[in-house]
Amino acid sequence: MHAMTIKAPGGPEALAWTEVPDEEPGPGEVLVAVAATAVNRADLMQRQGFYPPPPGASVYPGLEASGRIVKLGAGVAGWAVGDEVCALLAGGGYAEYVRVPVGQLLPVPEGVGLVEAAALPEVVTTVWSNVFMVAHLRPGESFLVHGGSSGIGTMAIQLARAVGARIFTTAGTEEKLARCRELGADVAVNYREEDFAARIAQETDGAGVDVILDNMGAKYLARNIGALAVNGRLVIIGLQGGVKAEINLNELLTKRAALAATSLRGRPLSEKSAIVAAVREHVWPLIAAGRVRPIVDRVLPVIEAAEAHRVVEASTHVGKVVLTVGG
Amino acid sequence: MHAMTIKAPGGPEALAWTEVPDEEPGPGEVLVAVAATAVNRADLMQRQGFYPPPPGASVYPGLEASGRIVKLGAGVAGWAVGDEVCALLAGGGYAEYVRVPVGQLLPVPEGVGLVEAAALPEVVTTVWSNVFMVAHLRPGESFLVHGGSSGIGTMAIQLARAVGARIFTTAGTEEKLARCRELGADVAVNYREEDFAARIAQETDGAGVDVILDNMGAKYLARNIGALAVNGRLVIIGLQGGVKAEINLNELLTKRAALAATSLRGRPLSEKSAIVAAVREHVWPLIAAGRVRPIVDRVLPVIEAAEAHRVVEASTHVGKVVLTVGG
Repeated sequence: MHAMTIKAPGGPEALAWTEVPDEEPGPGEVLVAVAATAVNRADLMQRQGFYPPPPGASVYPGLEASGRIVKLGAGVAGWAVGDEVCALLAGGGYAEYVRVPVGQLLPVPEGVGLVEAAALPEVVTTVWSNVFMVAHLRPGESFLVHGGSSGIGTMAIQLARAVGARIFTTAGTEEKLARCRELGADVAVNYREEDFAARIAQETDGAGVDVILDNMGAKYLARNIGALAVNGRLVIIGLQGGVKAEINLNELLTKRAALAATSLRGRPLSEKSAIVAAVREHVWPLIAAGRVRPIVDRVLPVIEAAEAHRVVEASTHVGKVVLTVGG
Repeated sequence: MHAMTIKAPGGPEALAWTEVPDEEPGPGEVLVAVAATAVNRADLMQRQGFYPPPPGASVYPGLEASGRIVKLGAGVAGWAVGDEVCALLAGGGYAEYVRVPVGQLLPVPEGVGLVEAAALPEVVTTVWSNVFMVAHLRPGESFLVHGGSSGIGTMAIQLARAVGARIFTTAGTEEKLARCRELGADVAVNYREEDFAARIAQETDGAGVDVILDNMGAKYLARNIGALAVNGRLVIIGLQGGVKAEINLNELLTKRAALAATSLRGRPLSEKSAIVAAVREHVWPLIAAGRVRPIVDRVLPVIEAAEAHRVVEASTHVGKVVLTVGG
């Protein structure tokens, strides 16, 4: 089979579509003929050598894929050869075939094409697990997601809207802000022109927001805590703005607030399976009903992965950048 | 009636047992003739002028009391004059009578005396709400509580033991450490002689602990996060070691850990009532069964409150310092 290898850690040109050994599904796994995969920021870091695959994971990049099951490993029940699926992966999506533990498999949801479905697994599992399973966003609460035009952001806005939250978001261009509003954001703040915390204080009469999903880490920590409501929950899923920050614990205590930081890739299969099961139960019906959909910026063939990485690096996209693999 | 007033913010000598206006129970409240109250560190801060009562609360110190119901306010059901009760208060325990919203009332538990019962409300509600309702400590998990010989500490050790956790604690003298072990601590660390985080790493083969209950804030933040296990939860309920600290968000993210900071006094009645109801359901049976008990260092008459404050300030006590009020 072919897969995307990394010649040496570096720029997009380091990616090379290469003949590699075939894969065989192990016990509890299926082999999927990949139709499409999608680009995550983690892929860029892995290409640069900063985010090695966890032990046991495929060495090829790609944290999600869609395709058809072509072979069942020992002990697999409930899935059949030919099933159209999408999957959360610890790696290996940029390849013709990928092994997937059944706990990380999802059927392609009703009303979504096979290629488009590759844009779903990372964002639905990340948003559902953090915003709903960790932070317990409830109907009528307020929610802030940073980077509302990203893959995560576009899904977070749609899911928060579906549960009936008031939605705040940030983005860096007027075009992106407009897209966020179309998807359901009530207040979209241009972070280049305005302090989001001041704007939230103004829009909420000083009350703040109940839940924040943050990808910036240190750079936004003080402002995020400042923007939290009493009983507020801040969930950090990225550290694009740095790692170390000063924290005022008295502010957190006065608000009786909580701060969690999580990542998906390193979790054990049992936790990933629980998240995937929750997504299938809670998010798949919303997709089937047309209330939530994958937002795809563009679709490129996998051999143009270098160009796809440049797009994501430049952050000019809205939603996901998808790579087609299969025939 | 008489109550303890604060002549002017200052040392223990500022406390004065004074004739004050009588209290009347409002709708949804009962009037309790106080048998005993107990000293909390917050009382010392209030005496010094650093912790004013929240709006609507009694101006007299005292965050908990036991006694007998002498009058019912409008709309009170399920309680009768003469009932022996203990109560969580927003203030006013250092007095002959105190008004209590029914959501903050508990019956004196089976097997506990009326005076002793004054030592229960703050520690059971604080420990149950933080360790179990916020941090969800589960059987088989590991738990660290700082200041294991304090009122909070002695209750936290007993409740964690009752659910079957492995218990780590810190204290400052060998005598206190011995008391912690008697109550159920598996590992008791003298923080004056040993780095608790290093000891926990050694005792857990580097895995860390699942839940930490902390009263030190800034001073311990880095070491507490260092001592957390994957999926660990740190709950900060006191800031005796300062307010501002540097936090390494990458360490939190790598561990998928959470940090919450809470306080009880400022919560709305609805939240306090939910905690009190949970305590009655989960903790009262453990007390009735003799598996958990109030730990009382000494009992003094309320007119010796100044001496009681000196004891708590010097931190030479183990468990709670109780003040008797009624005949």
